[in-house]
Amino acid sequence: MLEEYDFDLSHVTSLIKEKHAKVVGLQFPDGFRREALRISGEISQNTGVRCVISANSCFGACDVDTGLLKSADIMFQFGHAEIPNITVADTHFIEARSLTPVLPVIKQAISEIPDHIGLISTAQFVHTLTDVQKYLADHGITGVIHHGDKRIAYPGLVLGCNFSAAAPNCDEYLYIGTGDFHALGVALATKKPVRIVDPVIEEVRMPDVDRMLRKRCAAIERSLDAQAIGVIVSTKIGQCRKELAFDLCAMAEAHGMNAHILMMDLVTPDALRAFNLDAFVNTACPRIATDGSAGFPAPMLTPVEFEVVIGERRWNDMVFDEI
Amino acid sequence: MLEEYDFDLSHVTSLIKEKHAKVVGLQFPDGFRREALRISGEISQNTGVRCVISANSCFGACDVDTGLLKSADIMFQFGHAEIPNITVADTHFIEARSLTPVLPVIKQAISEIPDHIGLISTAQFVHTLTDVQKYLADHGITGVIHHGDKRIAYPGLVLGCNFSAAAPNCDEYLYIGTGDFHALGVALATKKPVRIVDPVIEEVRMPDVDRMLRKRCAAIERSLDAQAIGVIVSTKIGQCRKELAFDLCAMAEAHGMNAHILMMDLVTPDALRAFNLDAFVNTACPRIATDGSAGFPAPMLTPVEFEVVIGERRWNDMVFDEI
Repeated sequence: MLEEYDFDLSHVTSLIKEKHAKVVGLQFPDGFRREALRISGEISQNTGVRCVISANSCFGACDVDTGLLKSADIMFQFGHAEIPNITVADTHFIEARSLTPVLPVIKQAISEIPDHIGLISTAQFVHTLTDVQKYLADHGITGVIHHGDKRIAYPGLVLGCNFSAAAPNCDEYLYIGTGDFHALGVALATKKPVRIVDPVIEEVRMPDVDRMLRKRCAAIERSLDAQAIGVIVSTKIGQCRKELAFDLCAMAEAHGMNAHILMMDLVTPDALRAFNLDAFVNTACPRIATDGSAGFPAPMLTPVEFEVVIGERRWNDMVFDEI
Repeated sequence: MLEEYDFDLSHVTSLIKEKHAKVVGLQFPDGFRREALRISGEISQNTGVRCVISANSCFGACDVDTGLLKSADIMFQFGHAEIPNITVADTHFIEARSLTPVLPVIKQAISEIPDHIGLISTAQFVHTLTDVQKYLADHGITGVIHHGDKRIAYPGLVLGCNFSAAAPNCDEYLYIGTGDFHALGVALATKKPVRIVDPVIEEVRMPDVDRMLRKRCAAIERSLDAQAIGVIVSTKIGQCRKELAFDLCAMAEAHGMNAHILMMDLVTPDALRAFNLDAFVNTACPRIATDGSAGFPAPMLTPVEFEVVIGERRWNDMVFDEI
């Protein structure tokens, strides 16, 4: 099925006119980058402004291109919901809601869904949760939509770094969306089963939690003899956990390790290769350790995993890293 | 020969103490990155501060890690001379002078050196120019050390983007340093021969100017039918030529092209691959087009080369892009 999204350009246009902007910054995550030139052209044509497209990567509302913002009167980031406790002046989040209908795949899954279930989704599908809830109610199922913490804009919305919208009193969750990562995060954070219903490929599946846990255990095992570690801090506005990094460094040193703080924007294997370190502890986006750690020159741990490595936390108390 | 450099850590230590800094930022270009952990450890030990190492790339004094600077009380960038007309508060440039003697290779080249020659070098060897000048004088040769424009900290210093220290009244230049790029830049900027004397590998050679010109001609030829171009602007503090980019865009549009401004920190093939464009015009570091354009998904032009493409400049008037 062709994925289609509502980029809400009339809203974008009216905000530009309201602000009397002359230079407009545009940010897109990788998945929407192929639409960038078309959207930019359309905005320029509608409003007469000069658009400037960020060609840096963009991983979430935590990742505002502040460099571009210095040169723009207003900026729009497409594809992400705002993070309410991180506000950046003149930056607006255009969520790019999916136009793909979700009920067909729910219908397909209905016989497997238990009577009481937590509903979760990403920015592309979170607007469908109340429709899903109604549809489930019609079939005698209670779908719980829970409001997460202050990092979360909508009830039921999960981020790659925050699963607080997974309702605490549920034995199972239904994730409406694409990809496995968010569902995996909720499964690891809650230790409860999560069923993925993917409206785009019309598939119902369970994320492979064991495989992820095995990989995390392997990273911990490979770090047990580490003598010199690098603690990574991000300069991205919503990912910067500097105090945590300083604390982890002090903790490592108290355990006789050499610890170095490495600060960076984009965390890549290439950027870390020149440093001859035995392990990395990542305080930036948790997905870097759990989702994208292949290729790094040494094991990449989350802060909680590092506590396990140095014996400050028991294996059983290991949780998913959240911001 | 093992390359050795003076990182002037006693000067670093005294600046840290003077400022009563608690958190110290450190930047290294790729070539010095392998020294980062040792230098960081030594600074911490001498002063008791917490060092934070930038793991972002660093290409010159134009490339200050302003993200890290927000978290540091003082920052040191190693390996580059300051750019006098770009000052960044609390940022100091530690030049890392090479300890490799230069006279042996000059001695080796002496019979080939004409009677009157301009002397040029990079930050690693520019401190040797007066010694070289004396040695040449002893052999009846006049070595001219010229002071460049306001972007240049020392007489005779050339940057990858600025060759104004090449003395105007010379028929030939002697470049003391490693690599070919700076010599190539001077050769193209002045249209005069440049002799490289490389103290590290003790070699005398001429840069391959024709090969570079052929590559630039090929990039221009491949861009002649471009309909849609991307004009790249850097967010790096000393590379941001926004006004030039806007002018180039307007110029492209006046010639019936679609032009898009792409703003970014690090200019990589990966970052540009998602945009389906026929050519790029790079207003960031000139070396990106001339030194590292292989792998980009479309030809990468300098602003002057783009003027040739659209017929606003004659081939014969083509010069090297300088900032």
